[in-house]
Amino acid sequence: MAQYRVLIDANDEKGIVHKVSTVFYNFDLNILSNNEFVDKENNKFFMRSVVDGDVDLDSLSTALIKVLPQKSTLKIVAPKKKNIIIMATKEMHALGDILIRHEAGELEANILCVISNYDILESLVSKFDIPFITISHENLERAEHEAKIIDCINAFEDVEYIVLAKYMRILNPSFVEAFENKIINIHHSFLPAFIGANPYKQAYNRGVKIIGATAHFVNNNLDEGPIIAQEVVHVNHAYGWRDMQRLGKDVEKIVLSQALKLALENRIFIHANKTVIF
Amino acid sequence: MAQYRVLIDANDEKGIVHKVSTVFYNFDLNILSNNEFVDKENNKFFMRSVVDGDVDLDSLSTALIKVLPQKSTLKIVAPKKKNIIIMATKEMHALGDILIRHEAGELEANILCVISNYDILESLVSKFDIPFITISHENLERAEHEAKIIDCINAFEDVEYIVLAKYMRILNPSFVEAFENKIINIHHSFLPAFIGANPYKQAYNRGVKIIGATAHFVNNNLDEGPIIAQEVVHVNHAYGWRDMQRLGKDVEKIVLSQALKLALENRIFIHANKTVIF
Amino acid sequence: MAQYRVLIDANDEKGIVHKVSTVFYNFDLNILSNNEFVDKENNKFFMRSVVDGDVDLDSLSTALIKVLPQKSTLKIVAPKKKNIIIMATKEMHALGDILIRHEAGELEANILCVISNYDILESLVSKFDIPFITISHENLERAEHEAKIIDCINAFEDVEYIVLAKYMRILNPSFVEAFENKIINIHHSFLPAFIGANPYKQAYNRGVKIIGATAHFVNNNLDEGPIIAQEVVHVNHAYGWRDMQRLGKDVEKIVLSQALKLALENRIFIHANKTVIF
Amino acid sequence: MAQYRVLIDANDEKGIVHKVSTVFYNFDLNILSNNEFVDKENNKFFMRSVVDGDVDLDSLSTALIKVLPQKSTLKIVAPKKKNIIIMATKEMHALGDILIRHEAGELEANILCVISNYDILESLVSKFDIPFITISHENLERAEHEAKIIDCINAFEDVEYIVLAKYMRILNPSFVEAFENKIINIHHSFLPAFIGANPYKQAYNRGVKIIGATAHFVNNNLDEGPIIAQEVVHVNHAYGWRDMQRLGKDVEKIVLSQALKLALENRIFIHANKTVIF
Repeated sequence: MAQYRVLIDANDEKGIVHKVSTVFYNFDLNILSNNEFVDKENNKFFMRSVVDGDVDLDSLSTALIKVLPQKSTLKIVAPKKKNIIIMATKEMHALGDILIRHEAGELEANILCVISNYDILESLVSKFDIPFITISHENLERAEHEAKIIDCINAFEDVEYIVLAKYMRILNPSFVEAFENKIINIHHSFLPAFIGANPYKQAYNRGVKIIGATAHFVNNNLDEGPIIAQEVVHVNHAYGWRDMQRLGKDVEKIVLSQALKLALENRIFIHANKTVIF
Repeated sequence: MAQYRVLIDANDEKGIVHKVSTVFYNFDLNILSNNEFVDKENNKFFMRSVVDGDVDLDSLSTALIKVLPQKSTLKIVAPKKKNIIIMATKEMHALGDILIRHEAGELEANILCVISNYDILESLVSKFDIPFITISHENLERAEHEAKIIDCINAFEDVEYIVLAKYMRILNPSFVEAFENKIINIHHSFLPAFIGANPYKQAYNRGVKIIGATAHFVNNNLDEGPIIAQEVVHVNHAYGWRDMQRLGKDVEKIVLSQALKLALENRIFIHANKTVIF
Repeated sequence: MAQYRVLIDANDEKGIVHKVSTVFYNFDLNILSNNEFVDKENNKFFMRSVVDGDVDLDSLSTALIKVLPQKSTLKIVAPKKKNIIIMATKEMHALGDILIRHEAGELEANILCVISNYDILESLVSKFDIPFITISHENLERAEHEAKIIDCINAFEDVEYIVLAKYMRILNPSFVEAFENKIINIHHSFLPAFIGANPYKQAYNRGVKIIGATAHFVNNNLDEGPIIAQEVVHVNHAYGWRDMQRLGKDVEKIVLSQALKLALENRIFIHANKTVIF
Repeated sequence: MAQYRVLIDANDEKGIVHKVSTVFYNFDLNILSNNEFVDKENNKFFMRSVVDGDVDLDSLSTALIKVLPQKSTLKIVAPKKKNIIIMATKEMHALGDILIRHEAGELEANILCVISNYDILESLVSKFDIPFITISHENLERAEHEAKIIDCINAFEDVEYIVLAKYMRILNPSFVEAFENKIINIHHSFLPAFIGANPYKQAYNRGVKIIGATAHFVNNNLDEGPIIAQEVVHVNHAYGWRDMQRLGKDVEKIVLSQALKLALENRIFIHANKTVIF
């Protein structure tokens, strides 16, 4: 018996749960877990069911589509490793956390490669027998540099997520559009506070008592894509901005890894620049 | 159209969600929110649905019982104020927090009275036009004292919860049995650490870096009933046990009020000395 | 033997701790606690010592001033209740929390009165035998309305803090200047995120996973005064903005009361739009 | 100019701060940071000052000892890498977190080797060019096994800390005594709750709503040594014990690394089975 994740994103209407659960029942599926959410403001229905059973996926899919409202999105996926690519710049903590989890088998992911604009992290990545590709931005226009990265990514097949593990360059709209809802970034502040450069310095200057980190999908407004996960930690007047930066690293890496895990396990729906997370 | 909370506690078997949602569909009910949980270890199914519609409750109840497994527990309740009694001793913070919320209309509750073994809190309670009943324990055996309290409680009708807002006396088994799953206590530690008397002193002596509070239903093992809510706060070496006690009050009152709110909104299921909370 | 808080705010220079502790030693004072902080960026030194001893305050003050750098600020205060005035609008939670703490004797404060632009909270406040003064803003220019409030406040003597316990009107610069570093506000967001009106709606629209509250001194830039305390709580996609608002109340009231307590205990220094808190 | 950490652990008496700061002043030292704590219950004084200056350490030491109470402990250390040994069993997360921090240069430490009773972690450790030493416990009495480990450790010089990064065997008193106040352990519960084996299973069975991790020095009572750091994370009824275990790993690794950092930076004093942390 195989396990499947059934993911439904539909316009809400009365009876969807009834109809979907009837299909599951008729296919003799066992429901291992079931989460639904109705976004009343946008009249949207989201559902993630984990089922197991001996089932023909095409028939199940056809039966579900028949009972779902028009324009619904249905995905049925078996748990398996997804291909991901990591982009980083110079810092080791977020990348290192993912590498260790990958090594420990904690992630449903194959890391195809790590791309960086510097070669600083190569010695770390190569320890794990993962290809490290340096694409320097020197003497290149941003568009040229990104074109090279896009080519590099497109040379791989079935890339499901691009993880920006402290990749410290702003991406052009064309890059973001090329990988819509596939780019996960960690921003080192509690968004929407301190958008942009050096948020720890901004936080220090503002005299905040809490700092944070935010993992989000990237869209074309800087640091304004759908938020996946956030976490914070207390600071006080004795923390300079470099102390905040040091302390913040622990939050950044945990939040990014948690967001990645949620994505890999198909737990995230995106709608109206927000996430629904089961 | 009226709103109802449908609460199901059943042995798990395939198809319950399908069958229940079909009943809802047939009764033309709108599902406002829906939560299910399967406790695989104990083969138990829990469900809380909030529905609205124009419905005959007896028919709905009959239809649901028909499709539910044998020995299921079904409750259909309309949101309305429940009768509660508060017991306290000398401290003001937890009681005061409930009184203010009650005054603000935040709680689905009528406070029938406050019972205390001292008269210290009378001046506070009487401000709110709530009966304050002093039942001194002096010169009484514990059983005699409790018998008086039980008589006092039983003089009221339909008491749904007894809230121990820092009631500092241990209750006899006979008292607890008289109000099974109806007594909510706040214990001023992060249970199961520091069961029993003066947990802050215990915590101080152990040199912990975090203290907490636990709201739980009372059963006959001291501080070992089903946990509803817990919260913690960081401390350091500079906190004496009285400082911990002072700081802990903020946690205690918030946790107790949150637990009470969950109970009043029918969000708690109890099974196997644990809670399922939707 | 009496207890004193010695508060020093000076330009930093080598030897201050040595010189101050020598004065304490010469006056045969016992140091109960001692906190220092050097803000290297601004070359500032802050110190709060709690001492006890049998001492002539004038002599001690003279001796300390002699050893401190020029333009230092020195305060020596005995722990005693400070006069405060609370301003509120319609919501009960933050005000109620302060009233209960006041009633319980937790605060080093006399509440002189509560001022509101509505009479909604009068029934709550009058329970506690605290004067409630309604100063309606209807048919008044903002400046006229505030002039009335200023007159009302100035009719009291020695007002040390004005606590805005969810006072929902923006204050004119002239009002703020009249009570510099004396007005403590609770803003219902994690500043600097969501400055201005209805932060919970802003937070909901942005899809954040954490909401918060910030207690701060008020200056003439809206929600931009020195931050005293911040706290947060996790939310998810299922929280509408009214749910966030409800949940946020618990954070707001605790943070405001904590900030007030810090101020009353002379634990806060203000410099360069930030706070140093011991 | 060199930087030094001056660490004082003394019986409390009036004037210590005055006397010590006078010595610093006479030696023309600049105080970068200064922390003191008086444990009134035990009449103990703790102080950690970071100073810089051009100083003869022997003279400074002699001058300080002269003014300190008898039986005081004085240490003056320059910031430099300390030798540490890590012990682990099979799990990768806590060890991996330290390895990455070490690689990133975040830790004031040289990792001399990793010792394990299995060879499972060898492939991870060897990536970082750190010696991995397998000392199997198979067919050995506990004392024999530990004697081998002690020999292995003693073959290295100046080992300042032994970090148990999820080393899953209980240590004999003789082992613990051999490295008094040098062994740092991570226990995967919020101590003192759930001492001993499989705390996540214990936590699951108790139905707690928060789980945690505790870093502590090891003494001869299982999981009862001085606590250095603790952290927690919320769970709910849907978490089985394996889910708690997975989630707990993030807390465990951060808490252990934080505790190690505190130790390496000479920020921890131990007294009466508690820690004072500056």
